[in-house]
Amino acid sequence: MNNTSKLKQALHDIIFEAETPAGRAFDIALIVCILLSILVITLESVEEIGMQYGKILYGIEWVFTIIFSIEYCLRIWTVTKKRTYALSFFGIVDLLSILPTYLSLFMTGASSLLIIRSLRLIRIFRILKLARFVGEGNNLAMALKSARHKITIFLLTIVTTIIITGTLMYLIEGRENGFTSIPKSVYWAVVTMTTVGYGDIAPQTAVGQTLASLIMILGYAIIAVPTGIVTAELTFHRKKDVSTNVCKNCLKEGHDVDAVFCKYCSAKLD
Amino acid sequence: MNNTSKLKQALHDIIFEAETPAGRAFDIALIVCILLSILVITLESVEEIGMQYGKILYGIEWVFTIIFSIEYCLRIWTVTKKRTYALSFFGIVDLLSILPTYLSLFMTGASSLLIIRSLRLIRIFRILKLARFVGEGNNLAMALKSARHKITIFLLTIVTTIIITGTLMYLIEGRENGFTSIPKSVYWAVVTMTTVGYGDIAPQTAVGQTLASLIMILGYAIIAVPTGIVTAELTFHRKKDVSTNVCKNCLKEGHDVDAVFCKYCSAKLD
Amino acid sequence: MNNTSKLKQALHDIIFEAETPAGRAFDIALIVCILLSILVITLESVEEIGMQYGKILYGIEWVFTIIFSIEYCLRIWTVTKKRTYALSFFGIVDLLSILPTYLSLFMTGASSLLIIRSLRLIRIFRILKLARFVGEGNNLAMALKSARHKITIFLLTIVTTIIITGTLMYLIEGRENGFTSIPKSVYWAVVTMTTVGYGDIAPQTAVGQTLASLIMILGYAIIAVPTGIVTAELTFHRKKDVSTNVCKNCLKEGHDVDAVFCKYCSAKLD
Amino acid sequence: MNNTSKLKQALHDIIFEAETPAGRAFDIALIVCILLSILVITLESVEEIGMQYGKILYGIEWVFTIIFSIEYCLRIWTVTKKRTYALSFFGIVDLLSILPTYLSLFMTGASSLLIIRSLRLIRIFRILKLARFVGEGNNLAMALKSARHKITIFLLTIVTTIIITGTLMYLIEGRENGFTSIPKSVYWAVVTMTTVGYGDIAPQTAVGQTLASLIMILGYAIIAVPTGIVTAELTFHRKKDVSTNVCKNCLKEGHDVDAVFCKYCSAKLD
Repeated sequence: MNNTSKLKQALHDIIFEAETPAGRAFDIALIVCILLSILVITLESVEEIGMQYGKILYGIEWVFTIIFSIEYCLRIWTVTKKRTYALSFFGIVDLLSILPTYLSLFMTGASSLLIIRSLRLIRIFRILKLARFVGEGNNLAMALKSARHKITIFLLTIVTTIIITGTLMYLIEGRENGFTSIPKSVYWAVVTMTTVGYGDIAPQTAVGQTLASLIMILGYAIIAVPTGIVTAELTFHRKKDVSTNVCKNCLKEGHDVDAVFCKYCSAKLD
Repeated sequence: MNNTSKLKQALHDIIFEAETPAGRAFDIALIVCILLSILVITLESVEEIGMQYGKILYGIEWVFTIIFSIEYCLRIWTVTKKRTYALSFFGIVDLLSILPTYLSLFMTGASSLLIIRSLRLIRIFRILKLARFVGEGNNLAMALKSARHKITIFLLTIVTTIIITGTLMYLIEGRENGFTSIPKSVYWAVVTMTTVGYGDIAPQTAVGQTLASLIMILGYAIIAVPTGIVTAELTFHRKKDVSTNVCKNCLKEGHDVDAVFCKYCSAKLD
Repeated sequence: MNNTSKLKQALHDIIFEAETPAGRAFDIALIVCILLSILVITLESVEEIGMQYGKILYGIEWVFTIIFSIEYCLRIWTVTKKRTYALSFFGIVDLLSILPTYLSLFMTGASSLLIIRSLRLIRIFRILKLARFVGEGNNLAMALKSARHKITIFLLTIVTTIIITGTLMYLIEGRENGFTSIPKSVYWAVVTMTTVGYGDIAPQTAVGQTLASLIMILGYAIIAVPTGIVTAELTFHRKKDVSTNVCKNCLKEGHDVDAVFCKYCSAKLD
Repeated sequence: MNNTSKLKQALHDIIFEAETPAGRAFDIALIVCILLSILVITLESVEEIGMQYGKILYGIEWVFTIIFSIEYCLRIWTVTKKRTYALSFFGIVDLLSILPTYLSLFMTGASSLLIIRSLRLIRIFRILKLARFVGEGNNLAMALKSARHKITIFLLTIVTTIIITGTLMYLIEGRENGFTSIPKSVYWAVVTMTTVGYGDIAPQTAVGQTLASLIMILGYAIIAVPTGIVTAELTFHRKKDVSTNVCKNCLKEGHDVDAVFCKYCSAKLD
């Protein structure tokens, strides 16, 4: 193993691993850079700040882009399966997080680049993926996955209720009360049923207010259903933490997974 | 079995079953048609679009109506118990989804037809009923059914609190602050307790704002109760994994998946 | 037992019991009367209706008052422990539901009588108490009772957060942005944290909006805590429905409370 | 033991313990004083009241400050580890609750003192800590602690969704519809996703309203996730009824209530 491949290996460990002190420091530095670059994007959009400090912020943005570019090149260089990485979800996000600034040299006023830049935030999830969050995240994902049929039925019921209510309210309230079209009425029904309640459109007639009241109480109470579904799944998966171990000495079960000795007779467990 | 009855059987399988590739393709095509026809209804109501493309949309609506009419006729033709189907919930929904367009030839400006047309959306649930969602849906329905007494008590408490609060606020705030009548005050109480909060009516006096604050905290915290009820039921059913097996001897259901004998009459289960 | 005491007994059974057909009919008639009388109170407060039909509604109100008065007298007459009934919670509610109309003969414009009249609604709960809801309601009450310490801590945390946030926002936003006093700021904090969000007062400064965002996310996520508390209790109590019965024949357990035969070996259970 | 140390011991028991009648009376008196002093701060900020009764309220504030000062001195005097107490969280809160009034003699118009004064409210938690709430609180804290990784992932997902949605809405709606900068759009996204919905900023374009609808339904349904997480933990801990017993041999805790031997080292538990 020559010096280059040693360096390559060391860099790979720092960039892709999180267990070593250097790897951890790298991850934290990267999170700070991502958050700061998001802050810069955000501040640039504020008119007064953009006017006064626009050039400085543009400069800082270039600094972060160069840092992220170096990081991207190192990732490509140190990874074994270069193609797989480049075409993976996080590989594309990594590329997208640096492209907009380079493109801004050729294109002007391309506001769509702004949204691509904000996708940088997703990179934080990659860093978490390395750390101990992976098990917990999997657990959550598994619970949501096994509840997906129930959640689909729930969402379909909600959406059907929203569309039918929206159509009804369009007929009841009519254009003169702000319900100018079915899409707008459906938008109102979403705002109401999810208990957001902007108040930019609100029913004015007695019949409309009565129907709205029913929808509100329904929307308020029905949240219990997805909550119940997700909770039942999570409780089910959480419960598995009780070991199925039976004590060989007293034949009692119900031991915790971390138990070393039987809690009833002090015999050693397997 | 002659050719007609062969065709009848084949069509029946395509229309009413979901397991075969043809049946699945038919279901997906139907869902797409339903969603597109709902989109047409929705777009028609937008003033600018209705003005400009009204005739085209009316034409598309006729295309879908004819498709749904053919489908309805085929359903009637292929099904064995024609009367039972025609009078079943989904049979009526199927009929209602084609009637309005035909009626629009004789009646003009009948906006009530609009809401009937939007009921087409319910037909999607029938398609889901055929597929693997049926077990999950039953599970949900069973949990909600066994929690219905608790949910009734909860809703009654909410409604009583809303009406008494509404009456109180009418006295406290009075007509000059927007609480012009008890129904309006009750409407405000619904908007507030369900945490929708339009802000079209809002308490102005110190006493009113204090009472409103109490109602908000109550409404915010009390949602824990129906959630707890539904979750406890779902957790209970999730754990038991109740079988859909029906005892051949006493016709009772609700047996556990590991049951070998009927728990009510001791007959052997399949 | 003479005729009077026979009548007394029969009336007592009709009024206080719910199991007999007559008792059930009486309960339903009473619920209808209560709901109609509440509707009358509600309609009276609507200006246009009150103007036009005020006298008719006043007449109907007298009809209901006389019905409720007769019912109250019969209750007093048929009950054995008259004093206990008259001073019980529902005895007082029964009296309060008839008093206001009589008082309105002597007092004029006493709007406080309105709220007393709306308390009639509480009588519906008494009727439910008789029926099969009692067990379910007790179950709920028991769960809430055993969670009361946790709920107290939760509410105290919420209230402390609301008051401190309210004070902070009063300093940050100040009187010129609608936060005219600490009570008003605290009212805003309640409206925000409970996710009601009227929008009658809303932060205008960047610092205020940042703090408001934090409070919103906190209020949005923290609802998980009381929900979890209540659910954990309800799940705990719900679980007891699995019988502790052990089959004498095969020694297996986990039978449902309604099981008559062992589901594993078909032996009769105790 | 001389008289002074007897008095010291008696005072210590009254101030720091809650089991004796005197200790309980002291705690209740203290809670009343804290709540009244918060009420005074609150009332002072109301312009009309502050104008008219400002001097009286300032006097009452001094009375409470002197009471709290005496209490603070007695705490310092009676406690054994004076330094530890003075630097503990509640020791600092105790000091902060009296300082502002004294400082107001030298500084004028220091509104930041107001917020420090409102921190007095936190002292109520100390009093609860002494009472039977401690077990319940610990139980809650333990459940939240073991759910912290899942909650972190949830909050990170929410915040990322909010920031990306905010940026998107800034591009879609633009400055003319109230979305004047990314921070403001992000603030709108927080208000919407948490279902607060002030309505001070609301989408006007069809695309914006569609995106807003998606975010609302997401925000409405996703609350099921933290609720499920917290509930699963609380159910888990509720079921196990974890004992507060600490093993004398290995000092580990978390034993079940029915445990006879330590599950880690097999030593006998009390």
